[in-house]
Amino acid sequence: MATVTAALDVMGGDAGPAVAIPGAADALARIPGLRFLLYGDRAAVEPELEQHRDLQAASELVHCDVAVGMDDKPSQALRRGRYKSSMWRAIEAVKERRASVAISAGNTGALMAMAKFCLRDATGSTRPAIAAVWPTVRGETVVLDVGATIGATTDQLMQFAVMGAAMSRALFGERRPTVGLLNIGVEEVKGLEAVRNAGQLLRDADLPFLNYRGFVEGDDIGMGAVDVVVTEGFSGNIALKTAEGTARQITAYFREAARRNPMSRIGFLLASRTFAQLKRRVDTRRMNGGVFLGLNGLVIKSHGGTDAEGFAAAVETGVSMARVEVVEKINQDLSSYRRAQPVEVDEVARSGAA
Amino acid sequence: MATVTAALDVMGGDAGPAVAIPGAADALARIPGLRFLLYGDRAAVEPELEQHRDLQAASELVHCDVAVGMDDKPSQALRRGRYKSSMWRAIEAVKERRASVAISAGNTGALMAMAKFCLRDATGSTRPAIAAVWPTVRGETVVLDVGATIGATTDQLMQFAVMGAAMSRALFGERRPTVGLLNIGVEEVKGLEAVRNAGQLLRDADLPFLNYRGFVEGDDIGMGAVDVVVTEGFSGNIALKTAEGTARQITAYFREAARRNPMSRIGFLLASRTFAQLKRRVDTRRMNGGVFLGLNGLVIKSHGGTDAEGFAAAVETGVSMARVEVVEKINQDLSSYRRAQPVEVDEVARSGAA
Repeated sequence: MATVTAALDVMGGDAGPAVAIPGAADALARIPGLRFLLYGDRAAVEPELEQHRDLQAASELVHCDVAVGMDDKPSQALRRGRYKSSMWRAIEAVKERRASVAISAGNTGALMAMAKFCLRDATGSTRPAIAAVWPTVRGETVVLDVGATIGATTDQLMQFAVMGAAMSRALFGERRPTVGLLNIGVEEVKGLEAVRNAGQLLRDADLPFLNYRGFVEGDDIGMGAVDVVVTEGFSGNIALKTAEGTARQITAYFREAARRNPMSRIGFLLASRTFAQLKRRVDTRRMNGGVFLGLNGLVIKSHGGTDAEGFAAAVETGVSMARVEVVEKINQDLSSYRRAQPVEVDEVARSGAA
Repeated sequence: MATVTAALDVMGGDAGPAVAIPGAADALARIPGLRFLLYGDRAAVEPELEQHRDLQAASELVHCDVAVGMDDKPSQALRRGRYKSSMWRAIEAVKERRASVAISAGNTGALMAMAKFCLRDATGSTRPAIAAVWPTVRGETVVLDVGATIGATTDQLMQFAVMGAAMSRALFGERRPTVGLLNIGVEEVKGLEAVRNAGQLLRDADLPFLNYRGFVEGDDIGMGAVDVVVTEGFSGNIALKTAEGTARQITAYFREAARRNPMSRIGFLLASRTFAQLKRRVDTRRMNGGVFLGLNGLVIKSHGGTDAEGFAAAVETGVSMARVEVVEKINQDLSSYRRAQPVEVDEVARSGAA
């Protein structure tokens, strides 16, 4: 496979280089041949890098004076950090094709604002979204938007469906991934016009690159009912975070239960290998790595509070997306979708947004 | 404790009396002295009732010709079922104070439409919500709205906060339950004016009967970060369903893991008692029973697809709410809240909704 270069904003996240550097080293150990462009404060990064010689040999460190704060508002971050922050320069490396993917654990709003500024398509007609790869009982489901913006018109939901299906196809090879629109089981209530109209359009359009399966509810996601779940960013973010919280909650029940009686302790000991696998399956760090879609380049957002293992997972997510050329495939599908039905969608979108 | 009478729409749900009657019998076995008014088609109910003599002795069966269908739209249900359906008559029994609570596994939209029609407060100023009691690692959290309606203004979110806190206090005895507003960690995005304004008002108001703790995210719910989580119905429903789906997903992983190797099988066997407890803790049936708040009477919605055990849980939820006089306490708090600050709230609500 071709060598992939990943551009890292190593100043992002609660811990900065103390997590990003060992995380990158972990990812390198699992993906030999990976190259890195590291953007950050040399004084903070070098001591960490000294402890990871393999990573050091595979990396180019670029000093940046400015780091975007975890609490900076997007507008502040743009004002202070455009052209010079570690976050900006990692994204810029993607724009200039020196890297295939940018990865940051910095704050979501700032990262999205910079990514849009730097990588937005020329027409500006695509609404960016953040996609998550969600583990299910049947495999993995792409869920978007999980928090790029709040609310979505009919046309934006259609774009999300096309982008999500292209990502699912690129990752998992299904020719026509199944797509569901996230909804709730209440009829005749206001506020869902955009979702209903998108459902109607997806059904009527019968697109060659996705298989629309209707509405899905929150509990269908983890059951793997469809390959792609489409929703607007507020509910998508809440669904994602709630699933993570529930997984942690059940893990906590386990620990408590395992402590409770001696017989159980022996039982848990005998089943420990199975438990280790199980723990890995419900480890929310493995879900780490939100993928920004709808831009002319690939940007991955890692959880700000993750550890090295979680950051490594985000890097691996980015590398696998880059290898299957997710961005190029999404842009192809979006173009052919737009050529196929530009008029009707806009009309319904307007009525949906009204 | 005083005798409680529960009015049941035994025709609701996917299975009707075949689930509702054994469910009621289960609840009766756990709550001696409970009385029932059963509304349904005599021909369908009596054969079931014959098999549960204790329930039969504790019940009065009222024949109803009409049953609301699971797919009826609220408007259809009202047209066909007002004054005569089993669903309507169960709610009416609460209105006429012949029962303390009405319970139905019928469709949510129809049940809410009828409950509003029959039990709405005279002023019409309270927006009804559905509250769920959500098990957390620290106990139980009240979450509302989980699907009564979509979207909410600032004033409606304030009402939800007051109602949720009253319910939490009635159930768990905390004088000033902690309250959080569900939000996502993205700054400077549109669409959140109502949530932000409600946050500001709750902070400024410093109400005597609740302790506002700021924004919470989806993963804070299961961690028990606050006693009450307030949100609008679309995201609340998606959060609830997603948590249920995740719990089922992890249970499925377990079953699969337990089968996988002999050592684990022995381990799981030794830990089986602990597992049974654990299974009970993550059993989504125990979460069954959405509580309709903001009405002049108590109505509980059971899952339509639940089994007898789940329906029994909904009945038990209803009985415990009735015993602590949730509705009366909510109405007291809402009144004193309205007396305290009628003007400012309306103003901000308007600007938030604009």
